[in-house]
Amino acid sequence: MVNVGVIGATGYAGEELIALLLKHPEVRITNVSAKIDKPQKISDLFPKFKGRVDLICQAPDVKEIAKSCDLVFLALPHTVSMQIAPKLLKAGKRVIDLSADYRLKNLKVYEKFYQVKQSDKTNLAQAVYGLPELYRVKIKEAKLIANPGCYPTAAILALAPLVAFGIADTSSIIIDAKSGVNGAGRKLDEGFLFLAEGFLFSQINEDFKAYKVNVHQHSPEINQELSNLAGNSISVIFVPHLLPLNRGIIETIYIKKNKKSKEKNQNLISLYEKFYKKEPFVRIKPEGQFPRIKDVAGTNYCDIGIKDDAAGIIVISAIDNLLKGAAGQAVQNMNIMYKFPEELGLL
Amino acid sequence: MVNVGVIGATGYAGEELIALLLKHPEVRITNVSAKIDKPQKISDLFPKFKGRVDLICQAPDVKEIAKSCDLVFLALPHTVSMQIAPKLLKAGKRVIDLSADYRLKNLKVYEKFYQVKQSDKTNLAQAVYGLPELYRVKIKEAKLIANPGCYPTAAILALAPLVAFGIADTSSIIIDAKSGVNGAGRKLDEGFLFLAEGFLFSQINEDFKAYKVNVHQHSPEINQELSNLAGNSISVIFVPHLLPLNRGIIETIYIKKNKKSKEKNQNLISLYEKFYKKEPFVRIKPEGQFPRIKDVAGTNYCDIGIKDDAAGIIVISAIDNLLKGAAGQAVQNMNIMYKFPEELGLL
Amino acid sequence: MVNVGVIGATGYAGEELIALLLKHPEVRITNVSAKIDKPQKISDLFPKFKGRVDLICQAPDVKEIAKSCDLVFLALPHTVSMQIAPKLLKAGKRVIDLSADYRLKNLKVYEKFYQVKQSDKTNLAQAVYGLPELYRVKIKEAKLIANPGCYPTAAILALAPLVAFGIADTSSIIIDAKSGVNGAGRKLDEGFLFLAEGFLFSQINEDFKAYKVNVHQHSPEINQELSNLAGNSISVIFVPHLLPLNRGIIETIYIKKNKKSKEKNQNLISLYEKFYKKEPFVRIKPEGQFPRIKDVAGTNYCDIGIKDDAAGIIVISAIDNLLKGAAGQAVQNMNIMYKFPEELGLL
Amino acid sequence: MVNVGVIGATGYAGEELIALLLKHPEVRITNVSAKIDKPQKISDLFPKFKGRVDLICQAPDVKEIAKSCDLVFLALPHTVSMQIAPKLLKAGKRVIDLSADYRLKNLKVYEKFYQVKQSDKTNLAQAVYGLPELYRVKIKEAKLIANPGCYPTAAILALAPLVAFGIADTSSIIIDAKSGVNGAGRKLDEGFLFLAEGFLFSQINEDFKAYKVNVHQHSPEINQELSNLAGNSISVIFVPHLLPLNRGIIETIYIKKNKKSKEKNQNLISLYEKFYKKEPFVRIKPEGQFPRIKDVAGTNYCDIGIKDDAAGIIVISAIDNLLKGAAGQAVQNMNIMYKFPEELGLL
Repeated sequence: MVNVGVIGATGYAGEELIALLLKHPEVRITNVSAKIDKPQKISDLFPKFKGRVDLICQAPDVKEIAKSCDLVFLALPHTVSMQIAPKLLKAGKRVIDLSADYRLKNLKVYEKFYQVKQSDKTNLAQAVYGLPELYRVKIKEAKLIANPGCYPTAAILALAPLVAFGIADTSSIIIDAKSGVNGAGRKLDEGFLFLAEGFLFSQINEDFKAYKVNVHQHSPEINQELSNLAGNSISVIFVPHLLPLNRGIIETIYIKKNKKSKEKNQNLISLYEKFYKKEPFVRIKPEGQFPRIKDVAGTNYCDIGIKDDAAGIIVISAIDNLLKGAAGQAVQNMNIMYKFPEELGLL
Repeated sequence: MVNVGVIGATGYAGEELIALLLKHPEVRITNVSAKIDKPQKISDLFPKFKGRVDLICQAPDVKEIAKSCDLVFLALPHTVSMQIAPKLLKAGKRVIDLSADYRLKNLKVYEKFYQVKQSDKTNLAQAVYGLPELYRVKIKEAKLIANPGCYPTAAILALAPLVAFGIADTSSIIIDAKSGVNGAGRKLDEGFLFLAEGFLFSQINEDFKAYKVNVHQHSPEINQELSNLAGNSISVIFVPHLLPLNRGIIETIYIKKNKKSKEKNQNLISLYEKFYKKEPFVRIKPEGQFPRIKDVAGTNYCDIGIKDDAAGIIVISAIDNLLKGAAGQAVQNMNIMYKFPEELGLL
Repeated sequence: MVNVGVIGATGYAGEELIALLLKHPEVRITNVSAKIDKPQKISDLFPKFKGRVDLICQAPDVKEIAKSCDLVFLALPHTVSMQIAPKLLKAGKRVIDLSADYRLKNLKVYEKFYQVKQSDKTNLAQAVYGLPELYRVKIKEAKLIANPGCYPTAAILALAPLVAFGIADTSSIIIDAKSGVNGAGRKLDEGFLFLAEGFLFSQINEDFKAYKVNVHQHSPEINQELSNLAGNSISVIFVPHLLPLNRGIIETIYIKKNKKSKEKNQNLISLYEKFYKKEPFVRIKPEGQFPRIKDVAGTNYCDIGIKDDAAGIIVISAIDNLLKGAAGQAVQNMNIMYKFPEELGLL
Repeated sequence: MVNVGVIGATGYAGEELIALLLKHPEVRITNVSAKIDKPQKISDLFPKFKGRVDLICQAPDVKEIAKSCDLVFLALPHTVSMQIAPKLLKAGKRVIDLSADYRLKNLKVYEKFYQVKQSDKTNLAQAVYGLPELYRVKIKEAKLIANPGCYPTAAILALAPLVAFGIADTSSIIIDAKSGVNGAGRKLDEGFLFLAEGFLFSQINEDFKAYKVNVHQHSPEINQELSNLAGNSISVIFVPHLLPLNRGIIETIYIKKNKKSKEKNQNLISLYEKFYKKEPFVRIKPEGQFPRIKDVAGTNYCDIGIKDDAAGIIVISAIDNLLKGAAGQAVQNMNIMYKFPEELGLL
């Protein structure tokens, strides 16, 4: 039994983490906290938890948290995580950070996209990017997990086989992403733990639009991981859009073939099936079928469909942004770290 | 005052046409018809028209229609239009056909995508593709208008300036399209006038998916018109998706620059503004702004935003699929044919 | 041609008013204003108006407004209207106020429900409740119209015939109301003209709930008008709910029969049809049919269905809360005041 | 470990049952069947089950099912259940029927509302109405459970305390119910197991309406159970409406007080809390708070809020129609029948 804490319990990801952890047979939630004016029962903040958990949510007290927890999830805005994580790590705790603070290894890129300096270089160096399909071995021993962003999770899983095998012309990858509203997060009030504002119903319902056209902060995360896989620098075109629904991401990805690749005539669906053969949470669609949000919403799965056309390759991937794109992947990482069955509490 | 008839009045496009024509000060609707078991008041079929129109909707009787109408709108499934249009044209009537039957000049392409032969070659030859921004002069005198498809309208307007000026590398145009449900039409019952089935609520609500991935029947229509503009054969990659909302289309289009183009360093927003300067229904967004469905839903506008990046050009266009993408454009064509102000009844 | 101004142009009702007035053939909009930091084109605030109106929206300057307008619409929060209306009236202008400030004749009731005193008793006395179906004659000559609330419009029209003819047992009227989100308005920032916040998408989408259970501020408005009709004091039970959609109200109303009424055995549908015979915007459904939001959304109609059961009468009414429940009814009142055809600009 | 079968696996309730049973630690699904043209993997019918269950769904073969199962869930249309249940019971199997066939003890009432005769009187006599909060003791030993309807579950739980204690004036109970789309089920094709049609997206999205106004087939079920509780015949007024969302029911219930009741001055919230004290799935809201769909969707809870006004009592209840209103309650009944902890697999 692992004792866990959740800092940032009042946000979307925090709420989702609590829901998952309550169902996990090897976990005891011992502390929930958030930037909050006065302590309140978490079941008053989220009436859906009434009768299931009675913890008081209060402002985070790191000493207290370190005392009662083995593992701490940080469901915090970026810049806040890097203030709290070092203290917990110093106290010998393991940390899974759902913010962006420990994802980007390049300090300048972090600063450019998040407009603040990364102040915890020591821990950044040892942080493991928590995408189990690529980094499972390192995750097992990690002290600090940088849990991936939602868009990057769907993008990297969709592209990894093509990039790893040199099939993609890496100079012209286009990612057209569409996300439910919860994926875009809640806006911050004064840069600290409390979540204030989101999207108005009438600005989303019966509407659809692109945002941050090719300037979204998840681009460098995708680029970093694809470049690592390819062994050369990759820069994708990435355009996110906002869907009028609660949860789920679809990414439609356009790739040209690398004409020099020896593997270019392979059956791509077979290639993907082999690549992800042992993965419990990646499912490849058969020929002519493509993912839909409905099949992954509420699950930790990433579904991937592939079309190999003369004109180019089209790969479509789908995840639940709050699960495989955030809280679910965090629990998957915990399962790996504590040697639980990887699917425990996630099916 | 023009006397008009609507055949196919019970479908989405028919319903929308009637709503528009009822508000048009220079039009009298004299006949509404559809494949229907027994005659019914159109206001019983659509209670929202109660108190506004009292016509009886019945099975189409072409002789009767020819007697009472100057102009007939065909809001019919493809293959049905080409059975009815010749009779009306022979009777000296003008026809605006909202189906695909007279859009594709290449008989083989039509047959490939619609799986039936085009049987009315005579009228096909004289049919005018009803996109006012490109064919206004011909529309004025046309007897038969092939009203464009919804996806092609948004795609062609978004791409026309780049293609016409040779700025686009026409070998690698990618169109990622997202449409509200009404744009995908209603399914046919036995291939004739009556519309039977559509999309179940629970298959659309809180869901999102791609469909007909790069095999949609609107691709050849886009290719035909862009090829005409370019003077060489163009074949785009086109992936449509289904949005969980009633009306509206967004297309996000990715273009590489033609490195040989003399115009490649132009300010693209200025170029678009000039290209569409006199167009009443095309609006170009300022730098850094992009269209959203909300701004065009319920209107006949096409909004276009452009981002000119080192990595490529991204153009985003938005229309209401039932208006600029169908009934609204049909009325715009009528206004041109009858020398009414082009915006009459459409603002 | 009437010159009109809209104060509070940035709210839902203001936006809707501008859309209607732009289409009205006898109106020229000469001034738009709102609490706003710096002057901005109304078409920048609402890109959908681009190409249709070029007015600058600025902080309201009453003198300037009085100079350029014959009639002013106040789309303002309550308490703000009663600060501005007196100045406009004094300058000889006619005013249609969409707030609650001039609706309730009883000062104590106003204070109880709006928690502020009505400070403009003089004009309150002469204000006409702008429900054309009941007060058309007075509206013709009115200087100041108190435009009805959305819930009261649907409730009063649904109940008027039963109450006027003494058929309803007025001691036990129950109104179960359901409204789209825009009907609930936007929250105020510091009590003045600018509208800041509304409902978050994730708090509304896939959700439904009651609010202000039997304490909503529209109850006294309904009670006042029904009591006037009945000649005795009526107090309804009124429970509003929030629907996950943009626009429209349905009210399901439960009435017991007054056993002493002479009219109690009448055919109620015929009774309603007679009562509203000459009304251009009230439509009575035939036996066994009931209203739906779809048939009234985007229109100024109120649809009413009636079921006369042994156990009691059930009346269901539907309106578009932003049109017949706000901006549409305001324009209908303007048409009456200026002797235009009552439906002008509203069909 | 109990071996269970699901007949009618392709409907909403069947799909939901499979999802629940897959997570239940004491259950093995050994058979899934439905009216289906040719056998198909259940994970092909519902791609979301891919990787989790590999059973073949085929036409139900009762002998085969009896061989492999201890308990069978019938997620079938009414009239079909009563053809299959007798055979399974005869083979010594326990049956939980989610249809209406065994709910109504009065044969004439069944025939009136379902327009077919109940042909299995023998088993009807011994069937237990599966509402655990009222019939837990009988459920333990039951061979055949008539799993309650969704509307009745929310209505009976909301009214039971008031009716049992004689506080309600049982002559004037009004239930205004609002249900998500899945609650209204899928339409039948030829009265047998296969599910054909549901609600079109464009008929539900951005729409809302009442249906079966005071003639819904769930009325007699509510009446039967309330009458049993009261010891006298009760006939409620019941008006259901269709909400534009996937899952969830809210019922707003209006009750007059029985003036003769000794309990009429009790604190009603305390009364409800006592009445449901030991119930794991009923939660009473504190004073001034009311249920919302969001808090119960995806759970087996019934949330209830009460307002005790001079003018009458208002009780609002909320459930997930597919869980506490169907599949969840069925699993709860199974847990009781097999002496598992009542919440097992349901949290």
